[in-house]
Amino acid sequence: MKNLRVLFARRPQGLPVTGDFALDEAPVPAAGEGEFLSRTLWLSLDPYYRNVMKGSQIYADRLEPGMPMVGETVAQVVESRHPGFSAGDFVAVRNGWQSWAVSNGTGVRKLDPAMAPFSTALGVLGMPGLTGYAGLVYLGEPKPGQTVVVSAATGPVGCTVGQVARLVGARAVGIAGSDEKCAYAVQELGFAACVNHRRGDLKASLAAACPDGVDVYFDNVGGDTLAAVLGRLALGARIVLCGMIEAYSMDAPPPGPFLGPVVGARATMKGLVVYDWLHKADEQRRVVSAWIREGRFRWREDVTDGLEHAPEAFCRLMRGGNFGKALVRVAPETASS
Amino acid sequence: MKNLRVLFARRPQGLPVTGDFALDEAPVPAAGEGEFLSRTLWLSLDPYYRNVMKGSQIYADRLEPGMPMVGETVAQVVESRHPGFSAGDFVAVRNGWQSWAVSNGTGVRKLDPAMAPFSTALGVLGMPGLTGYAGLVYLGEPKPGQTVVVSAATGPVGCTVGQVARLVGARAVGIAGSDEKCAYAVQELGFAACVNHRRGDLKASLAAACPDGVDVYFDNVGGDTLAAVLGRLALGARIVLCGMIEAYSMDAPPPGPFLGPVVGARATMKGLVVYDWLHKADEQRRVVSAWIREGRFRWREDVTDGLEHAPEAFCRLMRGGNFGKALVRVAPETASS
Repeated sequence: MKNLRVLFARRPQGLPVTGDFALDEAPVPAAGEGEFLSRTLWLSLDPYYRNVMKGSQIYADRLEPGMPMVGETVAQVVESRHPGFSAGDFVAVRNGWQSWAVSNGTGVRKLDPAMAPFSTALGVLGMPGLTGYAGLVYLGEPKPGQTVVVSAATGPVGCTVGQVARLVGARAVGIAGSDEKCAYAVQELGFAACVNHRRGDLKASLAAACPDGVDVYFDNVGGDTLAAVLGRLALGARIVLCGMIEAYSMDAPPPGPFLGPVVGARATMKGLVVYDWLHKADEQRRVVSAWIREGRFRWREDVTDGLEHAPEAFCRLMRGGNFGKALVRVAPETASS
Repeated sequence: MKNLRVLFARRPQGLPVTGDFALDEAPVPAAGEGEFLSRTLWLSLDPYYRNVMKGSQIYADRLEPGMPMVGETVAQVVESRHPGFSAGDFVAVRNGWQSWAVSNGTGVRKLDPAMAPFSTALGVLGMPGLTGYAGLVYLGEPKPGQTVVVSAATGPVGCTVGQVARLVGARAVGIAGSDEKCAYAVQELGFAACVNHRRGDLKASLAAACPDGVDVYFDNVGGDTLAAVLGRLALGARIVLCGMIEAYSMDAPPPGPFLGPVVGARATMKGLVVYDWLHKADEQRRVVSAWIREGRFRWREDVTDGLEHAPEAFCRLMRGGNFGKALVRVAPETASS
């Protein structure tokens, strides 16, 4: 039995390509005293990995060529020499892009099968969900009846922002990259409207979708989309700066939007880093899992089978080709029981 | 006796030139019932006029070619048919760029000769002072020991920001456009340091002047200066967006700074419009005039004599050629007594 791993091979130039990664087989590691060995079931693919790959200092992770790619996973404990974990436990753990890994338990969370499907621990009940929830509730501060706009609306952050906005009485307007995504946002997620940024004039579409202006903009993309939304701000608007996906694939930072409209609207822009909000994770899981059980909160997953296909799935994600939370099924949930 | 006026002749292209204005003589107007006639003593020159000249919708003012230029003035009442004003009163009134004007008293404030020199009603005790005071205190929220950076540091807004920062226990760092201005900021205004943005590498100079990062940046200029400061933000920094002087002279808005550093620093950018803070004007005048009487608060004026020279003085201001609050002495203070 071998440990299949995906290594960071080289720093990408622009959008990542599969050649920036390398497949590798290593021995399955053994758990030492105070550690456990787990088998990876689900690997999360997140755009921020691209930033880690260029050495951005925002994150705790540091990657050097030849190291396994870092990343959040759901895994099942197979052998434990740690008093807090037992064989058979399902855990959220940062195994990275590898099929087996050893952990000392730091930052590991046991998953409750009754709460929601395990894969949600990487999506709407994981970091992306916390990002959307805490960013909207504590930085965006939506009020009932206000208009909340979110880009990348059908991803795990965006679908959380839109649905939390709706469930606190605000009006959610999505921005997404296809008609199919927009239809899903409106019909399944309950957005009041959704604008396809690849079709027609974004400013005009936003004006039609937000007749009273934008009170909260949760920005997952930056670039021209951010500039267009700034042109529709309502007085006192809040802009939550969360993701700048285009810039992640650039070596030199691109210019940003003209900030005159921020002054005119007396708006506030706030930078969001999810690690500041870990103290709200229990609250977020409690609130959102209740909505899930009541059938009022939905999400979508974009699943790739097999760790060996993770590089191409990640490259597709960075081109905006995913539809829903990007996941790799590394092993079936029943395999190691 | 004639009323000398400066008219808005045409919308400027880029930086304004004197040909964008026209001199004119009209009869001195007469005060109707409920009005008073006043003689302009001081005209304030402010960069935002350039924005009004292109029809920006931020301001209440609307200019059409052929109309007298708008603007804040200090004047002396010569004839009054208004119960609240008497001949001889000194007032802050928006006479615009003309030597005589009639007012119905709306928005007019009587000036107390004991408080400070009358010209300060257009500077550190007027709109610019309120801008700097309210923007720093209520949006910037400096804490003792924190580093407060302000651009255009020797103008009336900047000198207020820097001195209020110092007087609430923070460390003030200025950015200005000449060594002479920087020396004045440090030696006369009590800034801890001042960086000349026309000399050397601004980023390196800022790093040296702000070894612990920038907690508050009060931005009077936008452009490359803003981008440089964003690279030095401390965690939790506040950026007060107040002026974008370069953009005022552009027809199409220029791009802004890359906002990635705002996310990394968990910073907050806030748009400031002084008209939202008129309810703090009494507080600001009370606090700052006390500091003035105690000799702890200084300012500098850049005075041009004669209303006919106002256009060239304004054009110089827009090129950054002023040193201190730009004023035009329209008539001597003793002339109409």
